[in-house]
This record gives sequence, C-alpha cells and structure tokens, in this order.
Amino acid sequence: MQETNKLSVLTEPTLAEAAKLIEKAFAKRRTLIIAGACHVHYVGRASSTLEPGERILIIKADGSLLVHRPVGYEPVNWQPSGSIFHVKVNENSLEVHAVRQKPRENVKVTFSNVLVVSALSLNDSGEFLLYASEEDMHKAILLKPALLEEGFKPISYEKKVEPGFVDIYGVDKDGKLVVVEVKRKTAGKEAVLQLARYIDAIKEKANRELRGVLVAPSLGKDVQRLLVTMGLEFKALDPKKCAEVLKKAENSRLEAFFKEKT
Amino acid sequence: MQETNKLSVLTEPTLAEAAKLIEKAFAKRRTLIIAGACHVHYVGRASSTLEPGERILIIKADGSLLVHRPVGYEPVNWQPSGSIFHVKVNENSLEVHAVRQKPRENVKVTFSNVLVVSALSLNDSGEFLLYASEEDMHKAILLKPALLEEGFKPISYEKKVEPGFVDIYGVDKDGKLVVVEVKRKTAGKEAVLQLARYIDAIKEKANRELRGVLVAPSLGKDVQRLLVTMGLEFKALDPKKCAEVLKKAENSRLEAFFKEKT
Repeated sequence: MQETNKLSVLTEPTLAEAAKLIEKAFAKRRTLIIAGACHVHYVGRASSTLEPGERILIIKADGSLLVHRPVGYEPVNWQPSGSIFHVKVNENSLEVHAVRQKPRENVKVTFSNVLVVSALSLNDSGEFLLYASEEDMHKAILLKPALLEEGFKPISYEKKVEPGFVDIYGVDKDGKLVVVEVKRKTAGKEAVLQLARYIDAIKEKANRELRGVLVAPSLGKDVQRLLVTMGLEFKALDPKKCAEVLKKAENSRLEAFFKEKT
Repeated sequence: MQETNKLSVLTEPTLAEAAKLIEKAFAKRRTLIIAGACHVHYVGRASSTLEPGERILIIKADGSLLVHRPVGYEPVNWQPSGSIFHVKVNENSLEVHAVRQKPRENVKVTFSNVLVVSALSLNDSGEFLLYASEEDMHKAILLKPALLEEGFKPISYEKKVEPGFVDIYGVDKDGKLVVVEVKRKTAGKEAVLQLARYIDAIKEKANRELRGVLVAPSLGKDVQRLLVTMGLEFKALDPKKCAEVLKKAENSRLEAFFKEKT
C-alpha cells in the first residue's frame, strides 16, 4: 500500500484488503475511488440493474456516490449526499451498500474484482465563478426572454440599423416594438445615446410605438436622468444570472443523455 | 509505478512523471483518474473559473471529461466526448487541455501538485436495465399525465371505491371523469372486469359521463373484444417508459443543484 497523510492507494488488492481500506475511509470521511469489475442494483423511485463490467465507484467525503462507466460523461448510478454506507466481504465478492432514508433509496455495488482503491483526504475551498460575455447575455435573453420582461418575444438579434447593430429587437406583451441594448458592465451616458440613435433610426421607418430598453448590471451616476429625459427604460441584469441560464441550458444535455440511454 | 496490463498507478509523482503517464494513457485511450491540487478554466457557452483546490479529474476512454470536488454528486466542470486532449508541463504546473470544436469549448485543468494518477483499461459491456413497479407507473402518470393522454388531469389516486381502490381518478380534456386501472404486465380479462366493477360502483354515485381506461404494456388474447363490449378503453404504456419519466424527475435534482450552486 502507498500511504501518506493525504492518501492510501492499493493496487490489485484482495477483496479483504480492499474492504479494510474502504471501511477506514468511511470512518475518516475520505474520498474513495474504487475501480474494478462490479454489478449494481438500485431501488428507489424506480429500480435498475447494471450488469457486470468494469467501472469506477466514487464515494465522496459528504457521502455522495457515483458509478462511472468507461465511456460517457454521465454517471450510470448516483446518489446525493446523506447516505449511510457499509462494506461487506463475501467469499467471492465485496459489497458496498449506500442507503438513504428520504426518499428511500438503496444502491448496492458488488465487486467481483478490485483493480485499485484510492482513499484521499482532499481540501477544496476554491470558489467556482461563472462569467458571461455581452454575447452570452444576448444568448441568455434569446433563450429566456423573461430575463428582459414577462411576455417579451425576440424577433431578431444583431439587426443592422445604421449607425450599427441593434443587440436584440422584439415585441412586448402589448405588441409594442422593443429595441434592446445590452451592456456587460455599468452603463454610462454613451450607452444611452447609442440606444437613442437606434430608436431614432427605427422610428423613421416603423409606424408603431417603440420602446428602448437598456440592459446592464447597473446604471452609472446621473445616467438615470438622461435615460428618462430621452424616454428610454432600464432593466438591471447581472451577467452572472445570464451565465446561469446558459449553464442550465447546458445541463439539459445531461437530461437528453438519459433519454437516449434508457 | 504499479503497472499491469489493466492499469498503471503513480502515487505522488513529479509533474513530469505524471505528464508522461497521462500522455501514454491518451495514446492508448485508457481511462484516466488524476487527483491533485488544481485550478480550472472553462470557455464555451459561458466562461468559468474554479479557483485552486484539491479535486479529481476523470478523462474517459471516449474523451469525456469530469472534474469532481470532494463534495457533491455533480461534477463542477464536464465535457461530453469529442474533445482533443493534450498535456503540457511547465516549471511548476501540469496543464491538461481539452478542446471541442462544436460547440467551441475549452477546458484547461492546471495542476500544481499531483497526488495520484491511475490509467485504466476498463472493459464494460454490461447492460443497464430500468424497471418500474405498478406503483412506479402510478407515480409516473401523476407526474406526467400526458402518458395517459393529452389534457388528462389526475384528481386522486388509490381512491377507495368498493370493492377496492381505483388506481388513478381524473378528468379528461372535455371534463369527463376518467377511471384508470394500471397493470404492469399484459392485461387479462380479470383486469377488464375489475375496471368494470369500479366503473359500475362510481356510476351509481356520480352523475357525469364516465370513461374507464385500462393501462398496461399490452392486452391479452381476446381481451380487446371484452373491453369494447364493456365500453372501456385501452392505453398501451410500457413500465420502462414510466421508469424513464421517474428517472428524468430524479435528474431534475441535478439541475436544482446547479441553480443553488451558481
């Protein structure tokens, strides 16, 4: 066994050796990574069986559990934190049980052979930060127009309107045209004047009521007054919120994966 | 290094040693598990930074990538298959790059220290099988009433109606009462007669039009005729389909996790 304060690693252990290290890791709340030949039974909201094959079982310090096959980014079985674990050695197998109470769920991973067990003490307090570019903010509004306001329907984006391009162009719930200018940072007077120029250019052609909305995380000093004077509106939108919307859309790929697989 | 045909394991390697094994694993399309201190940058639909901490990086045989923190069942970063990988050693760091073309996405994991690297050749052709009990089928219909038919609205389930319990009870899109009897396997004559008894019992009390629908994966021989004679309907529903619906509901916990986290 390779052993330090931070980790214990067993390569091709017997089932009994593996069980001993796994038990110790549970007691110390270490993160466990077990690779080997196993089958998996799950009983909970539905039931599932994963027939024998070689996989990676991960049990984290908080008790969450993942079973990963050698292909695919999604786990084939998983449990959030809150399980109670135990390990059991039979004559020809090693069983890892994870039992949750609410909702009642039960995962049993039965190994016939263990290739490697790593028990790790990991320290991780690093922050996870999401960002969105101005273009990401456009995408997020197109994906979820309610970020601007309920009932908003985008018609086009990056529409050419002399002297440039309108970020997003749509209609509100009352059928009024809406011209949207998006800024990633605090919007200054220049952003207001830019939006006003687009409005003027479009007013010349369109024969409908027209609203101009400046979207940004915040407004600069004295900009509110200019905005009101010019008959324009402001909608506060945090780029981080947009990043979340895009990330969520990304997540739907995870669901799609399950749909295909099952 | 612990090495066999199936695996190579390096415990507390230098960055250069780790890089050598990682490169070899990429060439052989082995599954890689790297634990160590790292930070992560992602640029794609949005951008993200994961500040330094100790994590597990998994790169699978198909090129999918996962970064797992020591807590939580969800990866903090991930990529589906289809990335091109390379590894690079600097003076004080080891960089693993994963680049995807469509959509353009880029993950860079920079290790300042590596605790353990495992490169595994895993064979896994075991099938994943989902099951649903009759109760699971009820739950799935309550969760997604369109499984029965568009516009169906459940009112109650396991409603006591002499001589027993009606599985699901609701109204259809035209406001008609619907009594649903669910079977997990091919439905025989007994199931039809059971449903007919419930219908009779309810008809005595309710003063509305009443439909009886038998839900099962299939109908037994000659059962269709009996069903029609008794004025009842059949809706084919596979328990596996129900298991998928429940599994998908389960998956929404994954999304909820992201919402909380970001």
